[in-house]
Amino acid sequence: MSEIETRGATDRLHDQLEVIVALLRGHGEGPLPPPAHARLQRILDGLHSADIAFILESLPLDDRIAVWQCVKADRDGDILLEVSDAVRESLIADMDSHEIMAAVEPLDADEVADLVEDLPTAMLPELMASLDLQQRQQVQSALSYEDDQLGALMDFEMLTISEDVSLDAVLRYLRHFDELPPQTDKLFVVNHENLLTGVLPLHWLLVNAPETMVSDVMAPDVNTFHPTDDAYEVAQAFERYDLVTAPVVDETGHLIGRITIDAMVDVIREESESEMLGRAGLREEEDIFASIWASVRNRWAWLAINLVTAFVASRVIGLFEGAIEKLVALATLMPIVAGIGGNSGNQTITMIVRAMALEQVNPNAIRRLWRKELGVALFNGVVWGGVIGIVAALLYDSPTLGLVMTAAMTLNLLLAAFMGVGIPMMMIRLGRDPALGSSIFLTFVTDSGGFFIFLGLATIFLV
Amino acid sequence: MSEIETRGATDRLHDQLEVIVALLRGHGEGPLPPPAHARLQRILDGLHSADIAFILESLPLDDRIAVWQCVKADRDGDILLEVSDAVRESLIADMDSHEIMAAVEPLDADEVADLVEDLPTAMLPELMASLDLQQRQQVQSALSYEDDQLGALMDFEMLTISEDVSLDAVLRYLRHFDELPPQTDKLFVVNHENLLTGVLPLHWLLVNAPETMVSDVMAPDVNTFHPTDDAYEVAQAFERYDLVTAPVVDETGHLIGRITIDAMVDVIREESESEMLGRAGLREEEDIFASIWASVRNRWAWLAINLVTAFVASRVIGLFEGAIEKLVALATLMPIVAGIGGNSGNQTITMIVRAMALEQVNPNAIRRLWRKELGVALFNGVVWGGVIGIVAALLYDSPTLGLVMTAAMTLNLLLAAFMGVGIPMMMIRLGRDPALGSSIFLTFVTDSGGFFIFLGLATIFLV
Repeated sequence: MSEIETRGATDRLHDQLEVIVALLRGHGEGPLPPPAHARLQRILDGLHSADIAFILESLPLDDRIAVWQCVKADRDGDILLEVSDAVRESLIADMDSHEIMAAVEPLDADEVADLVEDLPTAMLPELMASLDLQQRQQVQSALSYEDDQLGALMDFEMLTISEDVSLDAVLRYLRHFDELPPQTDKLFVVNHENLLTGVLPLHWLLVNAPETMVSDVMAPDVNTFHPTDDAYEVAQAFERYDLVTAPVVDETGHLIGRITIDAMVDVIREESESEMLGRAGLREEEDIFASIWASVRNRWAWLAINLVTAFVASRVIGLFEGAIEKLVALATLMPIVAGIGGNSGNQTITMIVRAMALEQVNPNAIRRLWRKELGVALFNGVVWGGVIGIVAALLYDSPTLGLVMTAAMTLNLLLAAFMGVGIPMMMIRLGRDPALGSSIFLTFVTDSGGFFIFLGLATIFLV
Repeated sequence: MSEIETRGATDRLHDQLEVIVALLRGHGEGPLPPPAHARLQRILDGLHSADIAFILESLPLDDRIAVWQCVKADRDGDILLEVSDAVRESLIADMDSHEIMAAVEPLDADEVADLVEDLPTAMLPELMASLDLQQRQQVQSALSYEDDQLGALMDFEMLTISEDVSLDAVLRYLRHFDELPPQTDKLFVVNHENLLTGVLPLHWLLVNAPETMVSDVMAPDVNTFHPTDDAYEVAQAFERYDLVTAPVVDETGHLIGRITIDAMVDVIREESESEMLGRAGLREEEDIFASIWASVRNRWAWLAINLVTAFVASRVIGLFEGAIEKLVALATLMPIVAGIGGNSGNQTITMIVRAMALEQVNPNAIRRLWRKELGVALFNGVVWGGVIGIVAALLYDSPTLGLVMTAAMTLNLLLAAFMGVGIPMMMIRLGRDPALGSSIFLTFVTDSGGFFIFLGLATIFLV
């Protein structure tokens, strides 16, 4: 009945958050006084687990823990499943092993598997011992897959029927349940060996005559996936074919689990988020209220790489110190050449990486893409390089300097276009994610290359 | 029965694409010979509309049109709905008005509304005249909302029941249909005035006894949305509460449409994509096979802005040409100070913009965020600035130069942290999307600021 609580969802949630912040701020230091505590508990009891998760994520650590301690123990597990990894860590750090066991107890096997890696290792033997045999096997099965494999995301709440019964029998069978597994939009048809022979969408169960046999209306073949399938590719299939649930079978076709759209939506969101974070060199999702030290650790690797590439680019300039001493305008103008190359090349990379994520780029297309991008670069070089060349010529009263500037910008834009197509293609061939390192590598090339081209041309024609 | 065709979806699709490319390449110039044409048609007939859309998006323009002309006319509409905007434009440009009318004819009103803005304006009177009154009203209703409002995304395929009937009556009612609207997971309960009084999830219809009354098991209140709601906020609600469909009501509570998870998944994906594109200054989705001229137009505004900011930063350097002439090492080292500031500030922006998209940042948090980010910056400035300062001191045999370098890096990192928090906050206050302009503005500040701080300090202490 959680639906009752969520009307006008977003607005109400923000109101609740404000009320809670006011409650926490309303008293002095120390623990919450009992009336405030009771009021907070009443508010939380009325909220969906996902809403409590949102509130916990929006609060700084001390407030977060204060709210967490007001949450009823039997909801802890659901909420831990909803919060982000960074926040989950901070909540678990506040729980003792007794509380953790109580939180995990009401969860399904696939949910336990989701939490296991964030729990203290010392607890695992006790936890596994508390599960029954089937659950333990399911947890172990889920844990045996990589995070990006479907097996790590499937659940085990399948409703199976056999094909040699009537729809009426299926309808009567379903009435034995108090509820159906969440998101159920189809029943899985299996034979006596648990081999998947088809699916029966609830729609067909509802529109066909009760005396019809399952075998007559079931879909004999379906969007079936394997636990080793790449989760993101399956998510794309869910998107493409508007699926809500799909069966997961082992290599011999036995039904072993199912996958639901809500897990796939998470995959889609995480994929784009990790790309966004990766491009800025944030290694993982960062709790915005994390400590300074946690943030430093999350970000240092990227800064170190940037420092090295910036240093190399700087040494390229160092090669031409003689020229700069004679004509200081070179120092003033060189960042323009390097910067525009970087910007333009990153546009190319963004477009190509995006097309790659949608799998629209095949290797045959590379020459065609190069032709197009080099064309764009040539156009921009002549036009924008021309504009900035004229400005430079007027500013320093030197037509030759203007020509050198235009030529350098055009050449660096061509270099950027060439690398903007080539780098992500190369990353793919090396089996790496083109979204992650491409941009930093490109900027390195356009910086060093831009300085070299501009200062080199200037040395030849001007100094 | 489309499910039959999609087994092993992703792999099979790539195979098909290769077969099609080979077919198109296998003959000389000119139109496809009849046997190849027939074979292509056979392949396409066996594919899901979404798969044909994928193939069209993966092909360069001439091949794309060749394939498009082999698609059966009655599928044109479905496929046009599936392809990206840029590709849709290229396909429609190839169709005459007769073909377009035929493509639109089998579509639902909400789908017609999705296509309308891409159709030649001259066709609209004829198109609207071909619709019946209800459809015309629905199309006009859908068109009356902004693209980012829910009203533009809802469909009109609602199954409604009244609350004073038994579940058995509902089951019998459903058997009158040949199929249910796609994704149906609940029926909408309305009174005689079409006021929404609740929903009946199919699950509850199935697990409860047939003689139960709808009013006894329906959810009396639901996740109900309004056509003016922000589509992205509704998508977040779908994600949070694992919804599959939800009713849309007008301000007086009358049921006017419904919204489905597949539309919301598109919203989630588009939101992250437009953020990604926006950050690289690509104004809109770009067909990777677009013409050079189309690409130039799509990208020029961003390059122009970058050129202006780069030019301003260059004038900042110009202020210190005297200092650079005396100490050319300054020209060599200054890009490091500017570059690291930009990288570090962009990490801060990425983290904050992401938290803002998840609505986890409230204005109260700004001071706390500043404290944290300035702390990170101070740490990085002292450590990394210290390292690069030592290297500079050794390289140019000048301890003072090393100290100036360390001080300038620290100050520029502090500036980057201050602006990295402040710029997105300011954008929000001005009612603008912080994902779009923040990064370019920050880089401008860290470039100009970095040059000014470093060259300024050098002028004071070194020259």
